[in-house]
Amino acid sequence: MPLRLDATDAGFAAAFEALLHAKREVSEDVQATVAGVIDDVRRRGDEALIDYTRRWDRLELTPGTLRVTEAEIDAAVERAPADQRAALDMAAERIEAFHRRQVPETTDYRDAQGVRLGARWTAVGSVGLYVPGGTAAYPSSVLMNALPARVAGVERIVMVVPTPDGTVNPLVLAAARRCGITEMYRVGGAQAVAALAYGTATIRPVDKIVGPGNAFVAAAKRHVYGTVGIDSIAGPSEILVVADRENDPVWIAADLLSQAEHDTSAQSILITDDAGFADRVAKACEDHLVSLPRAAIAGESWHTHGAIILVRDLLADAPALVDRLAPEHLELAVADPDALAARVRNAGAIFLGRHTPEAIGDYVAGPNHVLPTARSARFSSGLNVLDFMKRTTFVGCDAASLAAIGPAAVTLARAEGLDAHALSVSLRLSGRLPGGRA
Amino acid sequence: MPLRLDATDAGFAAAFEALLHAKREVSEDVQATVAGVIDDVRRRGDEALIDYTRRWDRLELTPGTLRVTEAEIDAAVERAPADQRAALDMAAERIEAFHRRQVPETTDYRDAQGVRLGARWTAVGSVGLYVPGGTAAYPSSVLMNALPARVAGVERIVMVVPTPDGTVNPLVLAAARRCGITEMYRVGGAQAVAALAYGTATIRPVDKIVGPGNAFVAAAKRHVYGTVGIDSIAGPSEILVVADRENDPVWIAADLLSQAEHDTSAQSILITDDAGFADRVAKACEDHLVSLPRAAIAGESWHTHGAIILVRDLLADAPALVDRLAPEHLELAVADPDALAARVRNAGAIFLGRHTPEAIGDYVAGPNHVLPTARSARFSSGLNVLDFMKRTTFVGCDAASLAAIGPAAVTLARAEGLDAHALSVSLRLSGRLPGGRA
Repeated sequence: MPLRLDATDAGFAAAFEALLHAKREVSEDVQATVAGVIDDVRRRGDEALIDYTRRWDRLELTPGTLRVTEAEIDAAVERAPADQRAALDMAAERIEAFHRRQVPETTDYRDAQGVRLGARWTAVGSVGLYVPGGTAAYPSSVLMNALPARVAGVERIVMVVPTPDGTVNPLVLAAARRCGITEMYRVGGAQAVAALAYGTATIRPVDKIVGPGNAFVAAAKRHVYGTVGIDSIAGPSEILVVADRENDPVWIAADLLSQAEHDTSAQSILITDDAGFADRVAKACEDHLVSLPRAAIAGESWHTHGAIILVRDLLADAPALVDRLAPEHLELAVADPDALAARVRNAGAIFLGRHTPEAIGDYVAGPNHVLPTARSARFSSGLNVLDFMKRTTFVGCDAASLAAIGPAAVTLARAEGLDAHALSVSLRLSGRLPGGRA
Repeated sequence: MPLRLDATDAGFAAAFEALLHAKREVSEDVQATVAGVIDDVRRRGDEALIDYTRRWDRLELTPGTLRVTEAEIDAAVERAPADQRAALDMAAERIEAFHRRQVPETTDYRDAQGVRLGARWTAVGSVGLYVPGGTAAYPSSVLMNALPARVAGVERIVMVVPTPDGTVNPLVLAAARRCGITEMYRVGGAQAVAALAYGTATIRPVDKIVGPGNAFVAAAKRHVYGTVGIDSIAGPSEILVVADRENDPVWIAADLLSQAEHDTSAQSILITDDAGFADRVAKACEDHLVSLPRAAIAGESWHTHGAIILVRDLLADAPALVDRLAPEHLELAVADPDALAARVRNAGAIFLGRHTPEAIGDYVAGPNHVLPTARSARFSSGLNVLDFMKRTTFVGCDAASLAAIGPAAVTLARAEGLDAHALSVSLRLSGRLPGGRA
């Protein structure tokens, strides 16, 4: 059964603290293996990719067949059911529309001292998108990772996807096609990350690597960070539902289980102000678990990591708990969700009101579903267009504006003992003209 | 002597590639030491901080004297020379003014399907600022790290600064005071980072840690990443100057040496289209090195890691080289710097024209001087207000808008085999009302 906590109990603070710091994932130590694979790909390139793919995906490749052909993509797209392709198109349009509003503007101005100042944003040149194979192959995840890059203006988006025994999810290729991805390689694991970071004869290196993956992929991304940029390393999924008694417990139970079904390490938490409602939700979860196809996973997650927290007053008591938990997903199933949301600081994404189940945001709402996990919403944001751009600031002085601000720079540089810094400014303040003419 | 390359030489591509990938830093393996220190601070808290401070800073502290008092800050500020404090004030005002333009806006709208969508930004709750002690104690660095946090609205900014033998740079405390920092502890090293990340009896933990430090500090930041946010780990400083023959070689030489004087691992590169000008700059560097106080450091950096690259045409040939180098600082000392800047994609900060030495940006221009190093300007940006904020997206549906977009979510969830996801949407589409009333 999920943990039951009552905020009015004497031991609540300690029990809540324990919940906050409970480890849900067994961290596999795959560093050494991954370092070896990456080294091997750096040394042997395509040959290493081909060897690992034979060993782990039971697939025989050549440098010529590493890349998925246009014809193969066409064929896969054709195989994807029409209703699914239509749903994918609708999702893609809504995700693009939402992310287009994130494109930042250049600033360029002259201040009171006559100094020209500003910042401009440019897209990252090339991005590698890791897409897991097998059961974790989610077409929605392709859209969520690739579309912000596309909206940002990334010129080259490269997808890698393992195809164990040669099988691929056609809807994953349909999603990639919808995102305009034409460069695609059938490799996965740490070896694919290494190829994206360092390049091989067939795969040119990229500037940044994003996308979900298993422990090997995550470790490989950490390993190549610095050589290329990476997105954040996602932990198991989380939902926190704040719900009053006016909700249908059957709906709320489905919401809790929709995160639980992702992974046995996922975490679903309910905060409510009504003990009877809490009981009804717990009961409804058990009812759903009888029929849900992924009941084994969802049940283990809910019973091991799930929690129901009873508070006296939602508006007064929930926000502080929410901020400590800093959930990836926060569902506010109350009559006035805005009042609650206004008091919350830390959450990856907020779902407002009784008719906004979190799952709507996983697919079609528009905002990104790649969100900060493991309490990192305290200091980080979901994937967005800015993750695929970078800001370059600029300054321009002429002789007059340098004369206005330069002396202070000389004073500070000397105070810091950096005399060449001071010199580079003071020379230009001394009235000499370019070309050495006095 | 610095490396000389000519882009028209047959071997140029290979030589440039070697320059790109040359390692400048000896990476010290301090991981094990740092992991031990962090563990110890987690176990013993203040006591461990006091022990390490006795050992490494030769300073005897108690839990009561870990914190720098207001009276001590007052006294230090008084000791700082008035002209330096005035320059610091001017710098702070300009940095604040520039960063205020970075504060992002909330978006909140309803789309054609009636779905409410948006994103809001909130400040990180608390930030720890690491400030190195000793010779690397730069007051300008306090401003550059603390002011964006302050502009972002961070409520609690905590500074840690080691004070070897009890000494502290008064101007560093004056800078902290100018930034409104009142919570300050005289501890440094990996132990200070551990205290900020995990907390001790005296120091409450923070959400994010920023600021420069030595190899131990950098390793500690990497170690605690995930528990808290961190800024990027800075490598040695770099400047790339693109200059034509119309410049005063004495000015350009000072600019090159102003980066070189930071660190023997720093790198200064000149790209020019005139071999005679290249010779004159090289000569001027040697002349400056005779008299500069930090000539030993600057000379070693310039002679070991410096480079002069000759190209045929600056506008045509320099941008591609700039983008590969992706320099932290890019100085465009040409008649029309905008034309060149428009062709460049990768640079941390750009300094436009002959009267804009890079050092002006280190102190008083306004943009941040914490910038991406080691070619990471390909995928990352300088420190800015957004680094101290996070974006929370939100979605709000009512029955009608959920009916418009929900069916596509159900289709995609089922296609991905996530039936609880589908259920959480479909239940709400089926006409049942909250409270279980049909």
